[in-house]
Amino acid sequence: MNAHDTVRPIRWTPQGLQLLDQRELPTEVRYLDCKTSAEVAEAIREMVVRGAPAIGIAAAYGVVLAAQEALAEDATRWRELLEPKITRLAESRPTAVNLFWALERMRQRLATAGRDPVAALLEEARAIQEEDLAANLCMGELGAGLLQEPCAVLTHCNTGALATAGYGTALGVIRSGYASGKITHVYAGETRPWLQGARLTAWELRQDAIPVTLIADAAAPLLMRRGEVRWVIVGADRIAANGDVANKIGTYGLAIAARAHGVKFMVVAPTSTIDWQLASGDDIPIESRSHDELLTVQGVRLAAEGVAAWNPVFDVTPAEYIDAIVTEHGVVHGPRPDTMARLREKISAQGG
Amino acid sequence: MNAHDTVRPIRWTPQGLQLLDQRELPTEVRYLDCKTSAEVAEAIREMVVRGAPAIGIAAAYGVVLAAQEALAEDATRWRELLEPKITRLAESRPTAVNLFWALERMRQRLATAGRDPVAALLEEARAIQEEDLAANLCMGELGAGLLQEPCAVLTHCNTGALATAGYGTALGVIRSGYASGKITHVYAGETRPWLQGARLTAWELRQDAIPVTLIADAAAPLLMRRGEVRWVIVGADRIAANGDVANKIGTYGLAIAARAHGVKFMVVAPTSTIDWQLASGDDIPIESRSHDELLTVQGVRLAAEGVAAWNPVFDVTPAEYIDAIVTEHGVVHGPRPDTMARLREKISAQGG
Repeated sequence: MNAHDTVRPIRWTPQGLQLLDQRELPTEVRYLDCKTSAEVAEAIREMVVRGAPAIGIAAAYGVVLAAQEALAEDATRWRELLEPKITRLAESRPTAVNLFWALERMRQRLATAGRDPVAALLEEARAIQEEDLAANLCMGELGAGLLQEPCAVLTHCNTGALATAGYGTALGVIRSGYASGKITHVYAGETRPWLQGARLTAWELRQDAIPVTLIADAAAPLLMRRGEVRWVIVGADRIAANGDVANKIGTYGLAIAARAHGVKFMVVAPTSTIDWQLASGDDIPIESRSHDELLTVQGVRLAAEGVAAWNPVFDVTPAEYIDAIVTEHGVVHGPRPDTMARLREKISAQGG
Repeated sequence: MNAHDTVRPIRWTPQGLQLLDQRELPTEVRYLDCKTSAEVAEAIREMVVRGAPAIGIAAAYGVVLAAQEALAEDATRWRELLEPKITRLAESRPTAVNLFWALERMRQRLATAGRDPVAALLEEARAIQEEDLAANLCMGELGAGLLQEPCAVLTHCNTGALATAGYGTALGVIRSGYASGKITHVYAGETRPWLQGARLTAWELRQDAIPVTLIADAAAPLLMRRGEVRWVIVGADRIAANGDVANKIGTYGLAIAARAHGVKFMVVAPTSTIDWQLASGDDIPIESRSHDELLTVQGVRLAAEGVAAWNPVFDVTPAEYIDAIVTEHGVVHGPRPDTMARLREKISAQGG
């Protein structure tokens, strides 16, 4: 498996940022051109690009565009003009912490940028993108190493090349595990309401010829009861300092069901997903999106007019349900405040 | 709340059976005319009519049509000709036991039918329909009586007037509970893949002005964690002699999540849903339906071409997860082989 074969959702060009429009997949494979930072913010909000690491990378390139705009508007007051543009990027989605992490890293680069801040920022955005790909390749190996014997696994949402710089987090582990013969088959939850599993994960795995079977999200407990899967492998949008994990709605239910059936539960995420400021997952803001995501599918109305809906798109899985959190700095077995703190020390020691 | 205000999915007319076409709801409210028993079998298979009690009632009327057909074909050999027509009705769906129960009851009526078997069978089919409505009204009161104080509840699939002769099983309890002030709000899982919750339950409750909020099936554990619901109230397609319950896919996961959060779990079903021949739920046949139910929505393709799917449409919830099974002959608290056996004795004593 060559990581560079996988699809790339984010491409920087001299004309601006190109984002693979994930709203159109799998029917259309089309890139959307974002020529301004406002267009990047809008693309993140509208889920042209989604997946915590990919959102961070797109926002980093958004800062490059923002600096170009600010400099063009006023070459002396540009730093002042830049700030609200970065704020707009920060306000595009609330839950995935990689967004704020990437913007903070871009701000720090800005502070030390010399005569050509745009070049410095572009270098930094590229570094964020390249490091994410490297982290995914590393996590793929580490996560696959946790699988004792060949088995089928269940994943949720899309955590693949489409959600990252390439290769994927949970889907990276699945790619590595399949390549090494540890994973024989993948079950993918369709992931209502946005259907990332049906539209994106099934498409990505098919492209790599990894055998995948789609299921309704609610069919997962029956799948586990029948002994069909040994592991659930998912990504994360934000991890608290105690190991609680915010991820796509439905992750929490999968974790409860996995525990009830003795199925292991693995979370795969780069350390940029960890919010060390939050003591627990209770403090993670959970985004609620438009009712229309539930009441319609691809423009087709499902429910009667006037029906109300509640559409939280993330939930929090308490650390006690998680067997392992896999990061590019190592695996946390049995995440708890102390085991997570040891990871943090290791990151500091490695200069991460 | 007047039970007779609710919608009726099954109407007998001198021209044949009219079935409210539930594939078209909530966009279209249209009855499909079934003039032959084969058309009734096809309508059950294609889910024009669905819901365990409604399937039983429709099949009973199907036997009336079958007898008319057999008599018209050969007035002397009609009993012989009738049998394959009943078999075709029995083969329409495998999981809901009410279908086989209703056909068996029609067969027994046939055995004692006099000079006008069609009239006798029609009388029996009408009795099945009327008794189902009466059972629902009774269960509504019994189930609502289990709710200690005003609370919100969660339901799954559609168990309302559309799934029965009228009023509903779980939705009957919800109607009674709302009327008596015990239920303040209803959350309805959308129920992928067929979207009975989004298309049918939300529509039915809106018609009765009962406040309903639709959620993705996978959002239920978060709803429970936030303490928003006190009870999960569902129907059943088949109940084994030990109290294990086969019901719409996703019910099992709701039961596991409910237990993890101290949320109570109620199953509401007429005693015709109990299969006393089965010692446990392990022996209940689980229907798998077409992949297309998952891969498309209302004809719109969701997943890429060539993606495989697994589409079991029921699962089995072990009795240990169930707090109460509500029937028209009384409530089984903590279903187990012995508590279920006491219900069976009570039914015999009451001449049920």
